Amino acid sequence: MPEVASAPITITAYDWVPGFARGLVRDLRVRWALEEVGLDYRVEYLPQGTQKEPAHRQRQPFGQVPTFEDGEVKLFESGAIVLHIADRAPGLLPAGPNARARTAEWVFAALNTVEPPLSDWAIATLFEADQPWSEPRQPAIRERIDERLGELSRRLGDNEWLEGEFCAGDLMMIAVLQMLRGEIADLLNRYPNLAEYRKRGEARPAYARALAAHLAGFTGDPPEGWTED
Amino acid sequence: MPEVASAPITITAYDWVPGFARGLVRDLRVRWALEEVGLDYRVEYLPQGTQKEPAHRQRQPFGQVPTFEDGEVKLFESGAIVLHIADRAPGLLPAGPNARARTAEWVFAALNTVEPPLSDWAIATLFEADQPWSEPRQPAIRERIDERLGELSRRLGDNEWLEGEFCAGDLMMIAVLQMLRGEIADLLNRYPNLAEYRKRGEARPAYARALAAHLAGFTGDPPEGWTED
Repeated sequence: MPEVASAPITITAYDWVPGFARGLVRDLRVRWALEEVGLDYRVEYLPQGTQKEPAHRQRQPFGQVPTFEDGEVKLFESGAIVLHIADRAPGLLPAGPNARARTAEWVFAALNTVEPPLSDWAIATLFEADQPWSEPRQPAIRERIDERLGELSRRLGDNEWLEGEFCAGDLMMIAVLQMLRGEIADLLNRYPNLAEYRKRGEARPAYARALAAHLAGFTGDPPEGWTED
Repeated sequence: MPEVASAPITITAYDWVPGFARGLVRDLRVRWALEEVGLDYRVEYLPQGTQKEPAHRQRQPFGQVPTFEDGEVKLFESGAIVLHIADRAPGLLPAGPNARARTAEWVFAALNTVEPPLSDWAIATLFEADQPWSEPRQPAIRERIDERLGELSRRLGDNEWLEGEFCAGDLMMIAVLQMLRGEIADLLNRYPNLAEYRKRGEARPAYARALAAHLAGFTGDPPEGWTED
């Protein structure tokens, strides 16, 4: 696996997250992009809590992971990092003119149009799970998720990928579609072409390597007093 | 104003939106970018409802505005459009190396980190305004907004712009900060450097031209049966 201690690229990730977040923390999206283009990287693992300390906030003002550093540039925001990787090495841009713009379009669509109702679901069912409105809000959120999936399904149609060839836009869209698990897994299955699309992405060797490295990185301990529900 | 009928660039916008959305519909972000770099454009105005019809969904699979077409490329997602404009003409990238990556980082931070709790506020106070949980949810949403503003305020510090010179990242961040109005306007005022930052952006002649054109475009009628609260 290209997780190499001497690599010139360094990303940050957590050394522990709760089970529900494994496979979703955004360092996976950056690892996948690096694997697709074959760039080695090393990982600086942050114990929970240290992401909010000044040392990390120097790299990431919002106290999140991942960050990316390659000697030339220091970046945060997984969308920007994945687009930068697509610029640095071949493998994440489709053929044809305006490849970068067409790729960025789908990265933004994934993060700013499809992901928001999925994030809202996470807020309702995790952060607000113990609130009396958690349950009653859920049908409307499911509807907003379903509307986006239907629109994406119609655009994808019978195509293998969004822009002809696999690109960073597919990587990010498939990573967002992975948020459809647990109680909302059924929504994806309403759209067989999207379910197959996600499976095609997850079947890529670069994804398998990235996921294995992502999961293998959780060697730390939960914060004091953490109890898994 | 560079809204020119014969311009090679066409964007789409609505011919009517309710008062609360004027100044926030995302065609304004694209108009502002075009004004900053001095590219003429023309606008195809969509009557409410037609954005969800097949003709527009060909351009925008999610049935939204704006879209962008310049003869070379057809794009949707205002983040991708603004980055494409920054590539096409000088004026929206900072000086120094990796200007595009540093700009993209802040465009994504605006849309994917700072905007989400502001969008959640809009959901709670507009779409869910008549729900019993609209009120009780608001304090937690205000806290999430305030956390992001505090983090952005600390990063901006005494700087005029996020990357030294005004760039597309400032444009998008300031457009997102404009969502702080009405009941949440007070949150911005807790951070004088952010309030001043937004004012600096709004004082730019390109922004004034973009806003005037955006507002002048609302010449259509509300949908059947619309009643402004």
